[in-house]
Amino acid sequence: MKPRIAVTMGDPAGVGPELCLRLLAEEKLQSVATPIVFGEAAILEAVAKRCRLPMPAKIIRRADFSSGLTQVVEPTLVDFHQVHVEAISPGAVSPVAGAAAFAIIEAAIRSAVAGEVAAIVTAPIHKEALAAAGVPYPGHTEILTSLTGAARSCMMLTAAEITCSLVTAHVGFRDVPQLLHPDRIFDTIELTADAMRRLRGREPRLAVCGLNPHAGEHGLFGAAEEERLIVPAILKARAAGIAVEGPLPADTAFLPTLRASTDAYICMYHDQGLIPLKALAFEEAVNITLGLPIIRTSVDHGTAFDIAWQGRASPTSLYEAFRLAARLAQADFRVS
Amino acid sequence: MKPRIAVTMGDPAGVGPELCLRLLAEEKLQSVATPIVFGEAAILEAVAKRCRLPMPAKIIRRADFSSGLTQVVEPTLVDFHQVHVEAISPGAVSPVAGAAAFAIIEAAIRSAVAGEVAAIVTAPIHKEALAAAGVPYPGHTEILTSLTGAARSCMMLTAAEITCSLVTAHVGFRDVPQLLHPDRIFDTIELTADAMRRLRGREPRLAVCGLNPHAGEHGLFGAAEEERLIVPAILKARAAGIAVEGPLPADTAFLPTLRASTDAYICMYHDQGLIPLKALAFEEAVNITLGLPIIRTSVDHGTAFDIAWQGRASPTSLYEAFRLAARLAQADFRVS
Repeated sequence: MKPRIAVTMGDPAGVGPELCLRLLAEEKLQSVATPIVFGEAAILEAVAKRCRLPMPAKIIRRADFSSGLTQVVEPTLVDFHQVHVEAISPGAVSPVAGAAAFAIIEAAIRSAVAGEVAAIVTAPIHKEALAAAGVPYPGHTEILTSLTGAARSCMMLTAAEITCSLVTAHVGFRDVPQLLHPDRIFDTIELTADAMRRLRGREPRLAVCGLNPHAGEHGLFGAAEEERLIVPAILKARAAGIAVEGPLPADTAFLPTLRASTDAYICMYHDQGLIPLKALAFEEAVNITLGLPIIRTSVDHGTAFDIAWQGRASPTSLYEAFRLAARLAQADFRVS
Repeated sequence: MKPRIAVTMGDPAGVGPELCLRLLAEEKLQSVATPIVFGEAAILEAVAKRCRLPMPAKIIRRADFSSGLTQVVEPTLVDFHQVHVEAISPGAVSPVAGAAAFAIIEAAIRSAVAGEVAAIVTAPIHKEALAAAGVPYPGHTEILTSLTGAARSCMMLTAAEITCSLVTAHVGFRDVPQLLHPDRIFDTIELTADAMRRLRGREPRLAVCGLNPHAGEHGLFGAAEEERLIVPAILKARAAGIAVEGPLPADTAFLPTLRASTDAYICMYHDQGLIPLKALAFEEAVNITLGLPIIRTSVDHGTAFDIAWQGRASPTSLYEAFRLAARLAQADFRVS
């Protein structure tokens, strides 16, 4: 039987709703899994009208979804019915939108933990809207880690050209050095090695980036974060049998020849991984949260408020996220 | 008359010597300018033998170079004659190599300031070797700024695909936030606008990257460095008539569509600019020091100690740096 995959609508004011409509209508995707969009029917209807996109044939109410889901074998919209369409302005940050997006994610996580769906694919949320709604998490990864009780987790972005895992993600630049710790770096290496082993079907080759320019040039720049924090994590990973190089100077780590021989990069901070990933593989990249007891993938872009509800947003990344979630579901990609 | 360009040999133990030998032998380059390599004949001879490269026909002694240079109209090696070949091991950091590289750069700067050469092109030096020799500068840019008495300067790397200027460069990651200041950011914007105006022959479009993930997402990450430090510099630059966007989230700033509409990026730190530049345009990129009273370009790679003296290093970046220096010399690219 095909896996059922929950797709969360994301921020109602962003491009998530139109991408979910496109996904529900994309027949090719349904050969790999059945999409169950967790969303708001009123919002999707308004977006469908504006963008001339079709509504799905099957819409069920949230109250029925847990009992009814087991019979769902076709593309379905689960309507949470909590937002008035008048309360949402496309492209605007609002606490109503943030609260609705959070409630949907929460429900999808519970559904995945309960085994009602085989995986979660998330459309983009807006971090300011979440904060405005009083949600105490900066983003998806933190929500997923907390609500599933995962002991550790990390964000990995993967595309055919390049894969990067992040030791730190949505934190201020100045806070990065104090958040780096050999254990945290080791966890990211180990989670990435485990993920790439399953994705590639063989032992992966990993590369760890340094923090400072030229990886510190042996202590010349920075506070020897490479020697103090990164090298111990690499040595521990090697002792655990993981093939890992580094710390590499980040500016030369992503040269074509190194990319060809590297299955995944371990990056110390958000932009160290996402700059090369998006420059080289934008729209094809998929975000996977590693270390969770459930499978979760995501688009690699934001809510794109500037083009929301216009029908212009490319669904490529959401389709790729859906395909990868289906593949991971078949490989039973959860942490046991 | 063709300009004469001084090419410094770089660290004797690196790939600089072999690249200089190739440059001296490359007849096509001599149509744009006459290369005068500032180097060590004994080292170049040893490298020429190992790599089966030709030595230049004309070698003059350092003592004669200032008086004799005016007559030089062919590719020439100026022999500094200060290093014994036995003192140098290819690929090894040494104070002897660092001191020799520094003396050569110093002489080239003096020669350019005196107008004996129209520009300087530098082969790579090794920062640890410089430090071992007690040289009080971390790299070329700082040496050039200090010895020419430039009021301000910055490092810009340029290739057909992408151009980046750096507000901070060879400093530790943790030191970046405290080094960012609106004046320093403005200087980098203004120097870059001036440089790109001359290179493109029209008003350039610039983009300034933020410091934090998602450019801080309106203060959600970081200490509002975008609002406090970067925005004031952008407003001042706009008031001065410069077309400049930002602060942009660094991870999406380098997407193909944005690259197409951006003549140059202003980056807050070394790897923010050099990761995308090297991932997208390695070997073609040239390093220019902006703001100097002399013209200086450089390769965009290091000493590559792992392949030094083997004849395997690609001279592409040095050739590009030489061609660009010749072009800048004709455009009188100096700060007046």
